[in-house]
Amino acid sequence: MPLPTIEWIGGIDGKIKIIDQTLLPTELKYVYCDDVKDAYHAIKTLMVRGAPAIGIAAAMGTVLGIGKSDSGNYEDFMRDLKETTTYLASSRPTAVNLFWGLKRMEATASKNSHKSVADIKNLLLEEAKTILEEDKEICRKIGENGQSLIPDGGTVLTHCNAGGLATAYYGTALALIFTAAQKGKTVHVYADETRPLLQGSRLTAWELKNAGIDVTLICDNMAAHTMKDKKVDCIIVGADRIAANGDAANKIGTYGLSIVAKEHHIPFYVAAPASTFDLSLASGTEIPIEERDPAEVTHIQGNRIAPEGVKVFNPAFDVTPAGNIKAIITERGVINDPTTEKVKNTIQ
Amino acid sequence: MPLPTIEWIGGIDGKIKIIDQTLLPTELKYVYCDDVKDAYHAIKTLMVRGAPAIGIAAAMGTVLGIGKSDSGNYEDFMRDLKETTTYLASSRPTAVNLFWGLKRMEATASKNSHKSVADIKNLLLEEAKTILEEDKEICRKIGENGQSLIPDGGTVLTHCNAGGLATAYYGTALALIFTAAQKGKTVHVYADETRPLLQGSRLTAWELKNAGIDVTLICDNMAAHTMKDKKVDCIIVGADRIAANGDAANKIGTYGLSIVAKEHHIPFYVAAPASTFDLSLASGTEIPIEERDPAEVTHIQGNRIAPEGVKVFNPAFDVTPAGNIKAIITERGVINDPTTEKVKNTIQ
Repeated sequence: MPLPTIEWIGGIDGKIKIIDQTLLPTELKYVYCDDVKDAYHAIKTLMVRGAPAIGIAAAMGTVLGIGKSDSGNYEDFMRDLKETTTYLASSRPTAVNLFWGLKRMEATASKNSHKSVADIKNLLLEEAKTILEEDKEICRKIGENGQSLIPDGGTVLTHCNAGGLATAYYGTALALIFTAAQKGKTVHVYADETRPLLQGSRLTAWELKNAGIDVTLICDNMAAHTMKDKKVDCIIVGADRIAANGDAANKIGTYGLSIVAKEHHIPFYVAAPASTFDLSLASGTEIPIEERDPAEVTHIQGNRIAPEGVKVFNPAFDVTPAGNIKAIITERGVINDPTTEKVKNTIQ
Repeated sequence: MPLPTIEWIGGIDGKIKIIDQTLLPTELKYVYCDDVKDAYHAIKTLMVRGAPAIGIAAAMGTVLGIGKSDSGNYEDFMRDLKETTTYLASSRPTAVNLFWGLKRMEATASKNSHKSVADIKNLLLEEAKTILEEDKEICRKIGENGQSLIPDGGTVLTHCNAGGLATAYYGTALALIFTAAQKGKTVHVYADETRPLLQGSRLTAWELKNAGIDVTLICDNMAAHTMKDKKVDCIIVGADRIAANGDAANKIGTYGLSIVAKEHHIPFYVAAPASTFDLSLASGTEIPIEERDPAEVTHIQGNRIAPEGVKVFNPAFDVTPAGNIKAIITERGVINDPTTEKVKNTIQ
């Protein structure tokens, strides 16, 4: 039901088709990248965003880059490939999935060094498509594993955008909602607007509305009153990094939401792929919290909304302790009342 | 230390001087009203806002209105007075303090019917000044009664604007902070931006910064992480209506903040004048919650930030249960761990 965020159109000489997310929610526009520079630009300027979607864009961008290579032998081709991946890697220096996607492409070429350059090019396109299909499948399984947590006629509250726009198609938190709806359930969603960058109002509300899901937008600070005043059956959010004990880092505001949900005895769910877990971290206290540009708080769409020179604290994430999480839904299964042992049994 | 929000300049032929709050925080501009139409316009267009400040503006606007009256006898003068108050009453039809201020002016004239019109005019000016002085005194006492709750070197988190800009001078919640600072204490404040109308970033951050108080702006959804990550000694907020049992209605977001404060064992204080209590209501469940225009959520400064046609839930207030409030600070004393009995003992 959601619109595909990123697709490959055509064969080896094809192109990437993406939704330009910078224009949402006011305009739905598709952008075609038929050159590696277009792909670089799309990643850099956040036309495509969300860790899984960036990984796919990088892999597809690699196909565009090596498409122009006229090297006849493996060594020259690998030099061109490395040039392409190095270039794409510089688009967003901190996006883990970007590097992961590029490494998979390089590994595919290495693995097939005995084949012709033309064959390797085709295998690289297949690999990029595989990465996309794998992501779809992960999201599909997360949705399938978690959808039963949403009752028919149920109301879900969500925060930020863990939707199709961040992935190839279905998203993580929103996958549960899309799957429940596909199974014929009526689902209503409250979407936190998610200051400062408003991913909730700009992306989640747009994505759900567009998919025909009944969605109501609220400001973040209305969540507590909404839980008290309206029937909210569960909270479902995504995650950016999950420690071995189940502590989950996610968009700023998630931690407060988990406390308010606990107060109202509303189950709080985290939906995330296995790749989100960082088992090298014993607990969430080890997860570093990025602080971002004060201008995100003092300005909206370039307009100043706060006094000049005011100090700002702008943490991008917070950590929700495992004790506040009723279950973590992954493509490998549901981890109820997460503990280190249960996480390792499912993820390792 | 804060700037006076509203003042009377000169004698009976004088004028009102106000801060034009619609231009904050980008511009500090004083506006002078020397005609009742100016006063009406200032109230209607929110140049002056906040219940106490509106009451004062209405009383002073009445003085401007009757200044032009050339009636020589009491009956004619009262007709002119009534015309003025009726006109001012139509500026913001739901502002209780507006009607209260105008009624006090009418009562002053009635009480002095035996005096000359010139004398009555002077008495009305005195009454308007008295209303302002009373408000200052109430804020001063609230500040005095509550300031000891803030330790030297302490950090306070506040929500919305319960500051001098809503009153004649010191505010209610911010009165505690201003008084503590005046007594030589170092105070640091985290100000919630307070979506949707951003009174925290536009007004509170401006007002505190302007008064030389160390203030840091955060988005509302950062409060929980701030309480966990930083040293926050207490939360101080204002109130719009308080029921007999101490349940307090205040700007949306206050209730969630009280839950998060409880989780972190941080005391949660409400500062409000006795006039805020509505003893006819047994509990907060009887307080009606106003829902406001969806455009407040979907737009910021006229710019669309959410998809066209999206549903919005936009409650303007929520109710914090007395059980989450460590103390209510009034000009008549501090009500610790509020109960119906304690509230009635202090307020009735």
